[in-house]
Amino acid sequence: MSGAGASWPVPLAMKRALEAARSAAAMGEVPIAAAIVREGEIIALEANATRSPPDPTGHAEIRAIRAAAAIVGSERLVGCDLYVTLEPCAMCAGAISHARIARLYYGASDPKGGAVEHGARVFEHDQCLHAPEIYAGLGEAEAADMLRAFFKDRR
Amino acid sequence: MSGAGASWPVPLAMKRALEAARSAAAMGEVPIAAAIVREGEIIALEANATRSPPDPTGHAEIRAIRAAAAIVGSERLVGCDLYVTLEPCAMCAGAISHARIARLYYGASDPKGGAVEHGARVFEHDQCLHAPEIYAGLGEAEAADMLRAFFKDRR
Repeated sequence: MSGAGASWPVPLAMKRALEAARSAAAMGEVPIAAAIVREGEIIALEANATRSPPDPTGHAEIRAIRAAAAIVGSERLVGCDLYVTLEPCAMCAGAISHARIARLYYGASDPKGGAVEHGARVFEHDQCLHAPEIYAGLGEAEAADMLRAFFKDRR
Repeated sequence: MSGAGASWPVPLAMKRALEAARSAAAMGEVPIAAAIVREGEIIALEANATRSPPDPTGHAEIRAIRAAAAIVGSERLVGCDLYVTLEPCAMCAGAISHARIARLYYGASDPKGGAVEHGARVFEHDQCLHAPEIYAGLGEAEAADMLRAFFKDRR
């Protein structure tokens, strides 16, 4: 894993994801969003949507992968990159592996629920048939601030 | 985890899942299926469907959880049990946790891709906010034979 760090410019796909996360918060959804990029083009941009309709699998990464697979016409998103505002959980890391995502860029680390650099560390086991290249820390401060503000308002 | 063992009777929900897995194989999908039971009633029964339409997240457990959440009208399937013919992968174990499944029953162990008793062991980390009770080995021989035959035919 490479730590891209806060001093790197935030790519357009991550900027779009941060905007989509902000919109999700306004809808009462946890502000997390993901974009999938193929050949420099954003082909899917999805935020968390677990509440309406109720769907415990409706995390941003799952929704973006499903949308991208429909667009690409294949269950394997070979050569596609995924940008997400928060470190993926075990469910989403597993989906990223199944989808053969080439590069994973994420914003904030998630010590409480993440499964890339924390906990299950899904990509680090022999049972993981495909691991993406991983770049952490892009847009980290904005992603983390948004989540903090969201949960503070709900307390 | 309890090993239910091959000598226990196979509950109806697992029998239905084994039948659905068999039907999936006939459609060219990997023969794995899952059932969700609430108050003794099967409310969702889904097989793997990753190919048409292409969906790398279309594992039986994910599909059954999404269907059950729509029926229950909540993203939390409190008190619901999930029966699946194969040990869940990391993606599906994560979804089972998010959905607050009470009891997980699975058939065959999956040393190559499982994430319950193998690899990522998703339920065993602090980052896993809910772990179901786990019962392995129900219908194990039939589930494993079906998978072996499917992959043998494809070689």
